[in-house]
Amino acid sequence: MPSQDDIRAAARRIARHVRRTPILHLSTQDTGFSAPVVLKLEQLQVTGSFKPRGAFNRLLLAGNAAKAGVVAASGGNHGLAVAHAAKMLQLSSEIFVPESTPEAKQRRIRRTGATLTVVGANYDEARQASEARATETGALIVHAYDDEAVIAGQGTVGMEFAADVPDLTHVVVAVGGGGLFGGIASWFDDEVEIIAVEPERCPKLTMALLTGMAMAAPVGGIAADSLGARQIGALPFTIARGRDTRVITVQDDAIRFAQRKLWELARVLAEPGGACAMAALTAGGWAPPPGSKVGVVVCGANCDPGSIES
Amino acid sequence: MPSQDDIRAAARRIARHVRRTPILHLSTQDTGFSAPVVLKLEQLQVTGSFKPRGAFNRLLLAGNAAKAGVVAASGGNHGLAVAHAAKMLQLSSEIFVPESTPEAKQRRIRRTGATLTVVGANYDEARQASEARATETGALIVHAYDDEAVIAGQGTVGMEFAADVPDLTHVVVAVGGGGLFGGIASWFDDEVEIIAVEPERCPKLTMALLTGMAMAAPVGGIAADSLGARQIGALPFTIARGRDTRVITVQDDAIRFAQRKLWELARVLAEPGGACAMAALTAGGWAPPPGSKVGVVVCGANCDPGSIES
Repeated sequence: MPSQDDIRAAARRIARHVRRTPILHLSTQDTGFSAPVVLKLEQLQVTGSFKPRGAFNRLLLAGNAAKAGVVAASGGNHGLAVAHAAKMLQLSSEIFVPESTPEAKQRRIRRTGATLTVVGANYDEARQASEARATETGALIVHAYDDEAVIAGQGTVGMEFAADVPDLTHVVVAVGGGGLFGGIASWFDDEVEIIAVEPERCPKLTMALLTGMAMAAPVGGIAADSLGARQIGALPFTIARGRDTRVITVQDDAIRFAQRKLWELARVLAEPGGACAMAALTAGGWAPPPGSKVGVVVCGANCDPGSIES
Repeated sequence: MPSQDDIRAAARRIARHVRRTPILHLSTQDTGFSAPVVLKLEQLQVTGSFKPRGAFNRLLLAGNAAKAGVVAASGGNHGLAVAHAAKMLQLSSEIFVPESTPEAKQRRIRRTGATLTVVGANYDEARQASEARATETGALIVHAYDDEAVIAGQGTVGMEFAADVPDLTHVVVAVGGGGLFGGIASWFDDEVEIIAVEPERCPKLTMALLTGMAMAAPVGGIAADSLGARQIGALPFTIARGRDTRVITVQDDAIRFAQRKLWELARVLAEPGGACAMAALTAGGWAPPPGSKVGVVVCGANCDPGSIES
């Protein structure tokens, strides 16, 4: 798993291509929570999610291995990030998404000029199609989370968060395949507790930690397009087991409520997966201990604005 | 008009009550503009616009003068800010808005517990009703822009922007009655050019600068609820004449396009008035000279998210 040096190197490598996203402090008076919260506004990142951090790091490390183009499977955000990064680096790309991927994400991927194939009922089926295609073309597969370079790229979110808020005691982060979680957990030592949050209807990490092995889990609910990996990545799971990891599950209604809260409190608009970490707090699934300072990663906004009730 | 010391004092006074809003750097690659742009994300402020900066500064300076409560007239954002500030400071408030004020703003004002009166066809008529009411009750009138304490509060946007981006060459800001413009222009010396932007259908500052006097102007178009003062404030106009002031007008279609662009480029959701400054750039009404570094104030987002086309 990536070291802090790997993450620092990734940060230098990708700096020209990604945004240093801002933070926003919310007081206990603002939120009614038991501790102040700092949002990391990663939905303001290029392409509308944290994903280009990992995608650029992977492609910039690839060199000649990417000369036949790149292939990625995705619920949407990773595919958009790979398509964008490939375009910026003058590589061709083919992106595979399942039929459940929202139109807003499909449209954005098409606009980059990438070849988009919509196939399968879920991420896992799209991934199988993408791997078959890569075997035919010799293109480089950019995995959404089970890749050390991708995880190191996502870890730059943790590095920036720590630099901007040195007194963080907890970081709350949504888990799909586990790339963002793994990157952030790789940056922080045990002094900072990482709270992993996943939808109740995509409980991969919960099941893996309960059983002691990465295993297939149900995939469903409103955040499935961004958090609906069938099982936790092998590398992220190793990272999760290497430290004391707390995982919280949230219901779909709690995610919708968190979306509304982010909008009402701070005019932050996030897609369901992007609001999932916040949902652990707004639904009361996790309450910060007194004296803590809680970082919450808002990680994506590739939705139609009209999908947020206000 | 406020000095830098007045603005520094306002910043100290209001610090407990308002957010230090973040900035977001956009590269020329991101935007296609001729210079890099830095957004000041003031729509993330408490109550969803910059207005509480001025409202808190005014009320915190008022002391006993506000003991019979406060009254404000507004297209919505100032009223919401005054209602919120009054609540926080345990003062009663009555807010007057015209019938054209969007439901999203009326709803938020009501939620604070303020007494809301919807009266008149435009801001100016609501203002007259509010003044009559204040005469009856003895409440303190908090003017939306023609008040030195309000302008000093809004000037803290300029102070923060300069601290975070010391090499700004231009600041682009929307003009309604001129409070935000006046506050920002009061912070910066002539080394930084202030570009004032107003809707073509609310051309108060344009007309005032052309004729040399503040005069009634048409009020219309999609940003009228936030930028539809009938005439430029006397204090803001004095500030505008005291320095070389460039004013750009933008059409409603350009404002809508800027709203879409802010969303597409950076997942920033702004109401029409909040996107008005950006519209000067996206519509080509003003092109930054080579070598410049342009600050753009995104100043409000009290709209329904579904009102943004994406």
